[in-house]
Amino acid sequence: MSRIVMKFGGTSVANLDRIRAVAKRIKRETDAGNQVAVVVSAMAGTTDQLIRWVEEASPLHDAREYDAVVSSGEQVTAGLLALVLQNMGISARSWLGWQVPFRTNTVHGSARIEDIDTTRMIERLEDDIVCVMAGFQGISGDNRITTLGRGGSDTSAVALAAALNADRCDIYTDVEGVYTADPRIVSAARKLDKITYEEMLEMASLGAKVLQTRSVIMAMNHGVRVQVLSSFTDKAGTLVVDEDEIVEKQVVSGIAYAKEEAKITLVGVENTPGIAGEIFGPLAKGNINVDMIIQNISEDGKQTDLTFTVPENDVDKAAAILKATGHVKYAKLMSDRDVVKISVIGVGMRSHAGVAARMFETLAAKGINIQVISTSEIKISVLIRAEYYELAVRALHTTFGLDTDQE
Amino acid sequence: MSRIVMKFGGTSVANLDRIRAVAKRIKRETDAGNQVAVVVSAMAGTTDQLIRWVEEASPLHDAREYDAVVSSGEQVTAGLLALVLQNMGISARSWLGWQVPFRTNTVHGSARIEDIDTTRMIERLEDDIVCVMAGFQGISGDNRITTLGRGGSDTSAVALAAALNADRCDIYTDVEGVYTADPRIVSAARKLDKITYEEMLEMASLGAKVLQTRSVIMAMNHGVRVQVLSSFTDKAGTLVVDEDEIVEKQVVSGIAYAKEEAKITLVGVENTPGIAGEIFGPLAKGNINVDMIIQNISEDGKQTDLTFTVPENDVDKAAAILKATGHVKYAKLMSDRDVVKISVIGVGMRSHAGVAARMFETLAAKGINIQVISTSEIKISVLIRAEYYELAVRALHTTFGLDTDQE
Repeated sequence: MSRIVMKFGGTSVANLDRIRAVAKRIKRETDAGNQVAVVVSAMAGTTDQLIRWVEEASPLHDAREYDAVVSSGEQVTAGLLALVLQNMGISARSWLGWQVPFRTNTVHGSARIEDIDTTRMIERLEDDIVCVMAGFQGISGDNRITTLGRGGSDTSAVALAAALNADRCDIYTDVEGVYTADPRIVSAARKLDKITYEEMLEMASLGAKVLQTRSVIMAMNHGVRVQVLSSFTDKAGTLVVDEDEIVEKQVVSGIAYAKEEAKITLVGVENTPGIAGEIFGPLAKGNINVDMIIQNISEDGKQTDLTFTVPENDVDKAAAILKATGHVKYAKLMSDRDVVKISVIGVGMRSHAGVAARMFETLAAKGINIQVISTSEIKISVLIRAEYYELAVRALHTTFGLDTDQE
Repeated sequence: MSRIVMKFGGTSVANLDRIRAVAKRIKRETDAGNQVAVVVSAMAGTTDQLIRWVEEASPLHDAREYDAVVSSGEQVTAGLLALVLQNMGISARSWLGWQVPFRTNTVHGSARIEDIDTTRMIERLEDDIVCVMAGFQGISGDNRITTLGRGGSDTSAVALAAALNADRCDIYTDVEGVYTADPRIVSAARKLDKITYEEMLEMASLGAKVLQTRSVIMAMNHGVRVQVLSSFTDKAGTLVVDEDEIVEKQVVSGIAYAKEEAKITLVGVENTPGIAGEIFGPLAKGNINVDMIIQNISEDGKQTDLTFTVPENDVDKAAAILKATGHVKYAKLMSDRDVVKISVIGVGMRSHAGVAARMFETLAAKGINIQVISTSEIKISVLIRAEYYELAVRALHTTFGLDTDQE
């Protein structure tokens, strides 16, 4: 007997037929003698509708009321799924965030989980009652509903799995698992059976939108075994686990890309001490997430060109902030939205040199110019012209031996 | 300065434009220096959609999950109205049933209110914060959401007004108040400025669907001054008050009709002691609301014909119950759905004789046959053929001097 948490996203519970399909999956687990807690999102489209209403009601809205309105979507799904399960003869009940209670801080709209009291839920699980919890929501110390931010249901599920000491947290979604590359671009992409938390984290933050980044960090910190799998097929998914569990490590596990990037270059910056702080401090304060940074110093050492990347939507805001900051002297600000970040990811890099060199050679062989490079322990990222991104991903996928065996 | 409760039904908050109109009405009260608590229903149509989902999910649904799902509608409206108020510069916050807390028993789907703890809400009201409470919902002793039954938001509002010791409870609806008769039938019908609780109760239970019966009983028991008025005009409504407050009492205040009635006649019932109990006991157990009853005894006293009315939808169920009860011997069961109950209502009847006689004469003069009669202290009801009902209501309206002065 295992204790598992199953999480179903908005498309998996989009209507009653799909909720019934979800209930059948749950039944398989209870038939197998497992204790099951379920976390559900709102029916697809519901949250967007609620957010539109909130924005129409008050453009600068009180986040506490936003949370009260928006959290109602998960409440409906939790109740309906409990009802469908009961109708199939399975004991079930719904739990709202405040009923668990699933305690968070008071940062409405993107609350952090503080404590989950699972005492009563565990009693019910041990009585073989399926516990269906509304995802994405909690309760603050001042007795108001909070939400965890977009995609927060993944985080709810992983946090609940940690609190319940569950054997597994299955995240059902509309993809079959984590792939070595986006299958829409690379037809030879393979589904990974296992991936490490760290690799998953790089994948998640790089636009392979399978799991919310925050949920992966939480899974890593609490050692929750997460499985990503499809709610529309019966295939095994991808298990996200600790590095120790992966016996045969690939040097490279996957190739990711991120299109919503833009490059900003400040030409002719006066090269004075502390200049980087004067540029990136205000950007950080403006909540702009600067990613890659490179700096070239001119021959005389007096001037420097600074290049960095920001999310595409933040280019104008970043430029405005830099203009407003009178201290920074530069000749010209150039921005370029026509770029894509390509990343090669793999924990095996730690023990294998030469990955960067092979990456650069591969791109050079295809005539693709590298604009910016950044690296971490398990990742190498480059910025290239947008039009080359599919070509780059496919070429790297082949170079690092990720292509499926094909006839 | 007054403390008032304002209640808005589903059509009054059907969309954001209407919610904005509601907010403007609230602003007038706060501008006048009043403390305002608001009770809202779900946006029109929402509750019906949620109920359809629940019924589709599980025909024999768990009432606890029904309540969890269905209560979400009021949650959305409460949050949106609070946001719209804030956007107009008015301090406001939403309260869900469990946050107040608005405590009920555990009879899910039609819970009874047990206790309302208004300590924190009063603090907010005294800080000039508009408190927007989700109607129709409460919390049970076992920490689950309950609902008060269809139309329960009226009851929520009156109960809150009683608990807050409010000076007035304004029920905004889609009619302008309580009329001497249905204006769709009687063009000369007048809006009443004041009506007593008891008269309102008779009106409400007789199909003048302005206020939910339960809310009127509660208002009467707690002496809450209720005003019924339109959320679409600026006219004064009808005040529902204690008899003492009405200086000049009309003998008859209104003429009501109820179409969803049916008549059942048991012909040739053996007239034995306790026979009435054997007939009406099982019907009561089957939750069938028997209204008017008459009994004629045959000349020899051995047999009796029993006629009574039940809600139209319950005729078949009533017949089945009577058949299943083997004890009751009767020759024939006849049912007739083609009847309407017409009632003349007025607290003035207590001190004025002859109302019944004038009623019967008026109907006789129009050639309308009376099938069943029942009376109470402030009401006389008759059952007539359905096709005569408009004619009867108009004739009685004129007889009792209720017509407006017309040129």
